[in-house]
Amino acid sequence: MAVTKVEIRSGAYYDSVVLMQLQRALADLPGVIDAGVVMGTDANKEVLQQSDLLTEEAKTAQPDDMLIVVKGEDETAADDALGKVDSLLSRKRGEGVEAAYLPKSIEAAVDMLPDAQWVLISVPGRYAAGVARQALEHNRHVFLYSDNVSLDDEISLKKDAAEKGLLVMGPDCGTAIVNGIGLGFANRVRRGNIGVVAASGTGLQQTTARIHQMGGGITHALGTGGRDLKEAVGAITARQGLQLLIDDPASEVIVLVSKPPAPSVAEKLLALARATEKPVVVDFIGYTPPARRMDNLYFVSTFDEAAELAVSLAENPPQPEPLPLEKFAAGQKYLRGLFSGGTLAFEAQLILKEYLPDVLSNAPLDPSLKMKDAVVSEGNCIVDLGEDEFTVGRLHPMMDNDLRIRRLLKEAEDPEVAVIFLDVVLGDGAHLDPASELAPAIADAKAIAADAGRYLEVVAVVVGTDEDPQDMDAQITMLKNAGARVETSNDVATRYVGKLIRALNPTPESTAEKLPPVDGAFLSQPVAAINAGLQSFTDSVAAQGAEVLQVDWRPPAGGNEMLMAILMKMKG
Amino acid sequence: MAVTKVEIRSGAYYDSVVLMQLQRALADLPGVIDAGVVMGTDANKEVLQQSDLLTEEAKTAQPDDMLIVVKGEDETAADDALGKVDSLLSRKRGEGVEAAYLPKSIEAAVDMLPDAQWVLISVPGRYAAGVARQALEHNRHVFLYSDNVSLDDEISLKKDAAEKGLLVMGPDCGTAIVNGIGLGFANRVRRGNIGVVAASGTGLQQTTARIHQMGGGITHALGTGGRDLKEAVGAITARQGLQLLIDDPASEVIVLVSKPPAPSVAEKLLALARATEKPVVVDFIGYTPPARRMDNLYFVSTFDEAAELAVSLAENPPQPEPLPLEKFAAGQKYLRGLFSGGTLAFEAQLILKEYLPDVLSNAPLDPSLKMKDAVVSEGNCIVDLGEDEFTVGRLHPMMDNDLRIRRLLKEAEDPEVAVIFLDVVLGDGAHLDPASELAPAIADAKAIAADAGRYLEVVAVVVGTDEDPQDMDAQITMLKNAGARVETSNDVATRYVGKLIRALNPTPESTAEKLPPVDGAFLSQPVAAINAGLQSFTDSVAAQGAEVLQVDWRPPAGGNEMLMAILMKMKG
Repeated sequence: MAVTKVEIRSGAYYDSVVLMQLQRALADLPGVIDAGVVMGTDANKEVLQQSDLLTEEAKTAQPDDMLIVVKGEDETAADDALGKVDSLLSRKRGEGVEAAYLPKSIEAAVDMLPDAQWVLISVPGRYAAGVARQALEHNRHVFLYSDNVSLDDEISLKKDAAEKGLLVMGPDCGTAIVNGIGLGFANRVRRGNIGVVAASGTGLQQTTARIHQMGGGITHALGTGGRDLKEAVGAITARQGLQLLIDDPASEVIVLVSKPPAPSVAEKLLALARATEKPVVVDFIGYTPPARRMDNLYFVSTFDEAAELAVSLAENPPQPEPLPLEKFAAGQKYLRGLFSGGTLAFEAQLILKEYLPDVLSNAPLDPSLKMKDAVVSEGNCIVDLGEDEFTVGRLHPMMDNDLRIRRLLKEAEDPEVAVIFLDVVLGDGAHLDPASELAPAIADAKAIAADAGRYLEVVAVVVGTDEDPQDMDAQITMLKNAGARVETSNDVATRYVGKLIRALNPTPESTAEKLPPVDGAFLSQPVAAINAGLQSFTDSVAAQGAEVLQVDWRPPAGGNEMLMAILMKMKG
Repeated sequence: MAVTKVEIRSGAYYDSVVLMQLQRALADLPGVIDAGVVMGTDANKEVLQQSDLLTEEAKTAQPDDMLIVVKGEDETAADDALGKVDSLLSRKRGEGVEAAYLPKSIEAAVDMLPDAQWVLISVPGRYAAGVARQALEHNRHVFLYSDNVSLDDEISLKKDAAEKGLLVMGPDCGTAIVNGIGLGFANRVRRGNIGVVAASGTGLQQTTARIHQMGGGITHALGTGGRDLKEAVGAITARQGLQLLIDDPASEVIVLVSKPPAPSVAEKLLALARATEKPVVVDFIGYTPPARRMDNLYFVSTFDEAAELAVSLAENPPQPEPLPLEKFAAGQKYLRGLFSGGTLAFEAQLILKEYLPDVLSNAPLDPSLKMKDAVVSEGNCIVDLGEDEFTVGRLHPMMDNDLRIRRLLKEAEDPEVAVIFLDVVLGDGAHLDPASELAPAIADAKAIAADAGRYLEVVAVVVGTDEDPQDMDAQITMLKNAGARVETSNDVATRYVGKLIRALNPTPESTAEKLPPVDGAFLSQPVAAINAGLQSFTDSVAAQGAEVLQVDWRPPAGGNEMLMAILMKMKG
């Protein structure tokens, strides 16, 4: 009959690899049915329970205790197995590299490998912040894999690091790729022109792996730890990382991945991302973006979409067209949209929201943006001349251009007006030759502005097809000859207008406090790292051809909590 | 010196083409500087003001009055022009087709053109509802271009129409394309396999024009009027239109365009759209969709995107893969996700939300979805085995498969479990050969289910690259040989799982009251229409080769409001 035996060891530190190996070794012994070797936390006890390994005695283990459970075919088998624990443990400890030659502290490791830019930390959570502090004291960036680190520790570590121009990736940072070398868990990916900042471990892995699978490549992929974008942390690491990639000429496209950030944090990060011309693909998974696209920001909702879009942008980077800003006179800044199509006017307002606050309209997105008087323009506004108010006993502006032409000439006289935005809807039912009336009016409007020493940009979106009765090509040519810029997509036309007006109405600089700069030179240096914790991380960094030094780290006072507290007091 | 003279004519009805033509004719007379001919509404008076045509006398005009203003070079010129108004008006009236032979009423028109499926109405708003009622009495679909029609009238017209299986497009419906014929304002577009329903006139035009420009084509494009998706109207026309396109075999892709609908209305429409296998591209401009994609629904945010996606779907329609539903035993219905990657688990939950309500997790999207106990599965759940609670003194599940394998075998014993969903993360740092442990466990789990007469679907998403140390292809092959379905995209894998579990957990039928069916036969008949109102709509329908009959419509009592009211009372 199966017998389950338990041993509890208090205050003894073993790293989790050792626990795992001990469990496997015990389970492999003859006569052993199953075994469990864990720290005595509630969650671990529950897991033992599921495997029918939680005896009454095992329930008494404390979180700091090592709990060893063996289920044997009989009492002898179970006892024999427990009797071998010490010899199995000492064998495990003795394996591997010559521990005697390894540095015992971060300080010693820094002396032995002065080129190391990084300290990788995967010691148990309760010791991790202390090790990270030592790394910062020695001016090393920190890759903090450990979880179960407090939020307070995270905040103080990141603030200290930021002051010194250093990064703390983590805690609970599973992955990063720096200059081609993966830290922690990382997939091997092609070098390329896409940089990634991710507050999400496997999100970063999925994104970079998919980029590789789709033929793209990575410059650097910087992890931040999952809590970095919380309000309390304020995305310190993500902002540092984003700025590094913005300043890195090799990173032509940037991907920003995170679980949904706090709104104020999202705002800070997006303001920073918006300040570069580089395309930034944003996957705040589960976050509702203000728009699908905001100028250089592209919002997606899965890692797969992020990868696909990043690869496509990396292959065909958008070429921002220079804006004719120098043509305008001082004081010219406003947009006046004179639309015949209600939904085109609505869509234009919607897209403009991504570029400008407070575009007014007689048919506004929001009541607060309603024009005081549809007949009198003010500020930036989009007027829908097909609204009911204008069409009582009057033909629709798609048939009768009179009202629009009168308004156009009026706007041209306004010294603050820079851009006029029109739609010209072709097709059955519409005016049979709108350009024959609108084109001369556009030329007149431009002449009015020119005579007053100003420049008037007129943008027209022509809605039509080559089969429409009006001859679309001829209509477009007439409008162009009159000096209008002509598009056939309201989306494209509006974005051009939005960029132009945004440039003419500069918004005040972001008031977010700037972080001290991080010197990006390390991004182009060969990676060298010190590793405290899981030996496998040293092995994998070494396997990638980078210099790495394992620290033979042991908890202070051998992991004995009471002794540690006394030591701390004596130090203090 | 310029002199402005005014004439006000009370209670006289002239349609807006006549007003426009009179204004132009007056303005073209010798000695006339400018002229305005409008109904005396406040908005129109403001427009006159802008053109410096609003005298004190003109201000006294009432909304039902025709207001004629002439600015002459001198008094004689202005007086001469006003003296010609009657002759100009009678000339305008007399032009065009032989009015004597036109029917004077809808009833007469229906007798003359019994094949007409449609009555197009563009008479002034205050008369439009009455004309529409006559059309419905004669069992004709209504295309109601007129605006300034009350919401109450719209609701009662649409309810009456729905009872009879008829459509009322509008009021304020600018456009539609039925069986190749544009009604109202419409662009001429290629025939094709894309059907459109739009509560937005120029939105429909922009979308169909862009589809044509991009090489796609249209079956039908059905307008609804801009208020159709308001709560009070309940999208009666949009729901009828959507159902017609769903039932129309030629419409392989559907596009649904509207300004943001009321939430309850959006829900009804989307539930209807979800009930077809056809891809439906949704542009509720300005609406924040629950996701970018929900199975067959694709959310976009501009007309341009809608057109582009529709054309691409029309060229490469998604081929829904048959689900292995018949393999499962009765009672099998639940999903159990056993993840090692936290953000993969998070993304999976996010995507699953589009398929299933209430997926639980130990790391849930929302606190209300938190599992009572991470160690014990319940319902549909996604467990993140890398959460802090599981990793105290224990290796991460990306390195150590023990916990996951135990859990997998446990889940396989649950008779309600249908699908197990795993991630397998490769790369540096991770287990060097995870499939060597997971594949046998998957095979065992499937065998446990099979022995109990059940079928267990195991879906694994492998995150990795061909350069990873594990040999990704070999890992995938091992997992496949064990019977797992393997994907390399979490997005793709999750959508497959979502579809499967959704099919195994059928949601109750939508409780939205169904509308009486509309017989779709008219969609494949040659269009024939009766037009009451703007002659130009008759002309353009005729120019497209469809049969159309203009009604010589006049307002009751010659437009005299008081007389009309008396007539109505006498009738009543």
